[in-house]
Amino acid sequence: MDFEKLFAEQLDTLRNEGNYRVFAHLERHCGGFPKAKNHGDGAKRDVTVWCSNDYLGMGQHQDVLNAMHETLDKCGAGAGGTRNISGTNHYHVKLEEELADLHGKDAALIFTSGYVSNWASLSTLGARLPNAVIVSDALNHASMIEGMRHAKCPKAIWKHNDPEDLDRVLSDLPANATKIVAFESVYSMDGDIAPIREIVEVAEKHGAMTYLDEVHAVGLYGPRGAGIAEQEGLMDRITLIEGTLGKAYGVMGGYITGSRNLIDFVRSFASGFIFTTAIPPAVAAGATASIKHLKQSDSERMLQRERVAQLRAKLDAAGIPHLPNPSHIVPVMVKDPVKCKQISDILMQDFGIYVQPINYPTVPKGTERLRFTPTPLHTEADIDYLVAALGTLWSQCALARAVA
Amino acid sequence: MDFEKLFAEQLDTLRNEGNYRVFAHLERHCGGFPKAKNHGDGAKRDVTVWCSNDYLGMGQHQDVLNAMHETLDKCGAGAGGTRNISGTNHYHVKLEEELADLHGKDAALIFTSGYVSNWASLSTLGARLPNAVIVSDALNHASMIEGMRHAKCPKAIWKHNDPEDLDRVLSDLPANATKIVAFESVYSMDGDIAPIREIVEVAEKHGAMTYLDEVHAVGLYGPRGAGIAEQEGLMDRITLIEGTLGKAYGVMGGYITGSRNLIDFVRSFASGFIFTTAIPPAVAAGATASIKHLKQSDSERMLQRERVAQLRAKLDAAGIPHLPNPSHIVPVMVKDPVKCKQISDILMQDFGIYVQPINYPTVPKGTERLRFTPTPLHTEADIDYLVAALGTLWSQCALARAVA
Ligand SMILES: Cc1ncc(COP(=O)(O)O)c(C=O)c1O
Ligand SMILES: Cc1ncc(COP(=O)(O)O)c(C=O)c1O
Repeated sequence: MDFEKLFAEQLDTLRNEGNYRVFAHLERHCGGFPKAKNHGDGAKRDVTVWCSNDYLGMGQHQDVLNAMHETLDKCGAGAGGTRNISGTNHYHVKLEEELADLHGKDAALIFTSGYVSNWASLSTLGARLPNAVIVSDALNHASMIEGMRHAKCPKAIWKHNDPEDLDRVLSDLPANATKIVAFESVYSMDGDIAPIREIVEVAEKHGAMTYLDEVHAVGLYGPRGAGIAEQEGLMDRITLIEGTLGKAYGVMGGYITGSRNLIDFVRSFASGFIFTTAIPPAVAAGATASIKHLKQSDSERMLQRERVAQLRAKLDAAGIPHLPNPSHIVPVMVKDPVKCKQISDILMQDFGIYVQPINYPTVPKGTERLRFTPTPLHTEADIDYLVAALGTLWSQCALARAVA
Repeated sequence: MDFEKLFAEQLDTLRNEGNYRVFAHLERHCGGFPKAKNHGDGAKRDVTVWCSNDYLGMGQHQDVLNAMHETLDKCGAGAGGTRNISGTNHYHVKLEEELADLHGKDAALIFTSGYVSNWASLSTLGARLPNAVIVSDALNHASMIEGMRHAKCPKAIWKHNDPEDLDRVLSDLPANATKIVAFESVYSMDGDIAPIREIVEVAEKHGAMTYLDEVHAVGLYGPRGAGIAEQEGLMDRITLIEGTLGKAYGVMGGYITGSRNLIDFVRSFASGFIFTTAIPPAVAAGATASIKHLKQSDSERMLQRERVAQLRAKLDAAGIPHLPNPSHIVPVMVKDPVKCKQISDILMQDFGIYVQPINYPTVPKGTERLRFTPTPLHTEADIDYLVAALGTLWSQCALARAVA
């Protein structure tokens, strides 16, 4: 069997479609974020990163770094085992307490990533609860989709962010179904936000549990940074809140929070939680420091909002079309994988601006985009420079302008 | 729907079977491994950890810690994105080069864990290769089993470590099947080692690709620590070698190595690789330092072997039954979940010895055990103390002695 040929053929298809991915090879500068050295460039010049999910620059915050350095010196590099077999460290326990407190829940459970937290939790709930049906928003993240597939229980899809359709879908389920309504708060590619209150009300009416992914909201919304459900005063009405430690909190890892029994259930049965080495104590300590800081500091969130508003206003003034939404995510639509990559390449090479082209399978074909994430550490000058560069390219590539 | 009741019922079943897990709450001492503070004990006394998978104590090695401290200061805490969207850091690229070199392969790809590397790679190969059939050793790890389930391709199981049965199973497959033979080198719970040469020969005869999990062997076997396939001179005949950075290398993360097209294929299509934040640059740098050290240093491996042999000899002298095997893993069989936990509890409380009881679902019911992993950092006095404690308990609990 010629395996090489099988691999090469499918890679060629990707290339022909313009969907073959080339990773930018960067070296982040601690203290200099959003600047990074571009190793892909022979001269290894510095570029300004415009597409990081270290949304608030917490990856270089002194509290986070101090906690990581100290814990490295205190506990060493790794956890040394799975959570059950010698791998539960004091810093995991403290992080889980911090997360439970953040979301106002009994308990929390950490995973190696947000991806694994979704995949492992949804698949465990769907597989082990009697007559489970997972009722999923149509645009849920890959990690939830894979969790649902893995659960092998029946699924039902409701129209994206449409509580009325959810109501219809739930009404059609058998009376004895154990219903799990799964959705996100901030959808990362369009930046739109779910109508959580309406969704919760529909779920409650049908006796369904709610599973909310706040991956792109934790750290960023709500008075203590617990996310959109906190901002809307709805945390206590959500059964399970899932989040990441790798985006606004700037480190890595994922988690779920909920009732004591729910968390104990996933802890006891989820393969993806049980059979894997725990995250390094220093990572747990860094994440804890980040959460603690963003619980009591609003200045990063406020400055980020200012920068987002400034970028939007300047894009509008330049006639560069971007998707309107109420979040911190600014998608500039190109709608063609080849052009999208071209623009991104020119921005990098000629302007020292790095924004990754977002293509299939991250977004549907035909909706290719540049996705900008302004942080409190981007300056107004960075924004002016970016919008000027985009303006030049929009003219050069004869791309459509937004009509004012 | 009373969700709390559903969760509580299944947790009660676990409790009644003696399979409910209580995690030991430890605080590792960097520089003092295998000692750790036991937070589960009111007095927070130090205990000796006898069940860590930081097999060589690399989690406290100065090279590893220095690399992590430096990279933290240079690049900050997290990667700041998925590998495709701003998250590929120079330290990831260097680690992948190091891993490819370690296993003598074209290329390597890192994942957030060994679990995810198995799950994502096997499910991608099984799902995307035309007519794929995964042919699995009967005792493969949960992460491979979940990957196979997820692939939704046909599977076939061959008897554990039995190349003749593998031959029979492969002969029964349709001629046009794309055959993937998946197995481990060191099986972590029994400590037995696969007959890799025979397996490879059978696979080659049938034109099957080979997928080898060396998670419990990397760092520990072979002149450069690349695992059992290196020790046996077989690396170039294995299609894909998978490993972890979280056990003998002492940090966290997982990886695969193989041909350029194979690695590019998994990189391009595996959901569990694509849709998740990359590991922190400091973690990548720490793992790279650990691999580099164990490539040129054999002293840790030699001392570990000495300690393993000493423990076995002293257990034999005391008549404590343990599974014979050619690896570094010393399973002492108790074969009862309740007794196994009792012994473990007494060892912790009365002797300051921590060894986790291994129960279902990690091992089949009825094969509950204490699994000891001597490291180069356990002293002969530690071994004497452990064996004396076990001797006392064996008498107290009227457990069977091995017949000399
Ligand atoms: C909605 C959503 N959920 C979960 C994840 C996974 O989180 P993590 O990066 O921590 O694996 C992501 C992105 O990576 C995401 O966009
Ligand atoms: C055979 C085997 N493969 C893979 C894994 C997963 O590796 P990791 O701990 O890096 O997730 C483990 C244990 O955790 C294992 O025992």
